[in-house]
Amino acid sequence: MTPQDILAIEHACEKLCRQFANLSDESAYPEICALFTPDGIYCRPSVPDTEIRGREALHEAFLKRPPLVIRHIVSNCVIDVVSATEASGFSYIQYLAAPDKGSDRPVEAGPFHIGEFRDRFVLTEAGWRFSERRGQLALTR
Amino acid sequence: MTPQDILAIEHACEKLCRQFANLSDESAYPEICALFTPDGIYCRPSVPDTEIRGREALHEAFLKRPPLVIRHIVSNCVIDVVSATEASGFSYIQYLAAPDKGSDRPVEAGPFHIGEFRDRFVLTEAGWRFSERRGQLALTR
Amino acid sequence: MTPQDILAIEHACEKLCRQFANLSDESAYPEICALFTPDGIYCRPSVPDTEIRGREALHEAFLKRPPLVIRHIVSNCVIDVVSATEASGFSYIQYLAAPDKGSDRPVEAGPFHIGEFRDRFVLTEAGWRFSERRGQLALTR
Repeated sequence: MTPQDILAIEHACEKLCRQFANLSDESAYPEICALFTPDGIYCRPSVPDTEIRGREALHEAFLKRPPLVIRHIVSNCVIDVVSATEASGFSYIQYLAAPDKGSDRPVEAGPFHIGEFRDRFVLTEAGWRFSERRGQLALTR
Repeated sequence: MTPQDILAIEHACEKLCRQFANLSDESAYPEICALFTPDGIYCRPSVPDTEIRGREALHEAFLKRPPLVIRHIVSNCVIDVVSATEASGFSYIQYLAAPDKGSDRPVEAGPFHIGEFRDRFVLTEAGWRFSERRGQLALTR
Repeated sequence: MTPQDILAIEHACEKLCRQFANLSDESAYPEICALFTPDGIYCRPSVPDTEIRGREALHEAFLKRPPLVIRHIVSNCVIDVVSATEASGFSYIQYLAAPDKGSDRPVEAGPFHIGEFRDRFVLTEAGWRFSERRGQLALTR
């Protein structure tokens, strides 16, 4: 791999982390599930010990989420490229939400949380995908 | 376009979003206006339905802003490259401010806002510029 | 330098800023010190006028930090490449912390601070490193 190949992989994997957050905030669940490999694992930051395995289970888990105005803010993403087809990543996630009553924006948000994601990425025929996304919470306010 | 061309455009457009925020926080208004095309459109997140059109109108709008210690925090930027000369983008913007009394820092900030920008970018002879920047607010705290 | 060389330097320098934050939050002090040149200068955002000079002094300063659950959030990084071996940078840093009592997470955080870093980077045999990192605070909440 050239330095440019490595940079391109780091960019692609960070973009996945951002798309996960943005799609989650749009409640675009099929699109989020497509960011994972078919048997990808997801552990929510708020329930770090429960593994959701596979796109179908992930989609069902998302469907249980109540209607919220949510914002997931991604930062501090550092990707380690392991090989031309594997990478790992670390990033922070900040989270704010309010019940979605369809009213005018902005809505008053509830408490603020900071957590992190430890990710594993693989290159598939459709591009880079999450094979594992393990969340955890650190601070709340 | 090669993958490297696309990556370079995504980087250039995200840099514009960051420069907009940083220049805004320095009250560097002519420099912000120069990030837009001459007839570029700007809609503030707090007044999403009012179009400010053109660099001159934009400069006048900024001059009406009271003296503030402001911080605009950019995140979750995802750029879609449409062609070698056109791109669109989505990003979150967080906003905190306090009246600027020229006193010592840090200053106690007022409420915290989260919004978003939907951008359109074009390649000009001077580089990539905003042709449209439409803001909106989501949450406040 | 080609545009791709410049992009690679900007990426490397921003990665240093993110690694500084992540390593700081893990209390990985030797690893943070290794991000600086041997005689690198660091000024904490909360004590901007005190220069800590050199890796050894930096390490001692970090060891005085009480046990905290801290999160440093990096954003708005803009790098200016001066030459093939020199660059400068500007970024925002947000900071939240709570005493670390080894208890379950998340922990309730204390006040929130926003500051900035003005950095100078140099290319060494080991890669890009901070030669100067000058912090300052702007807002608190």
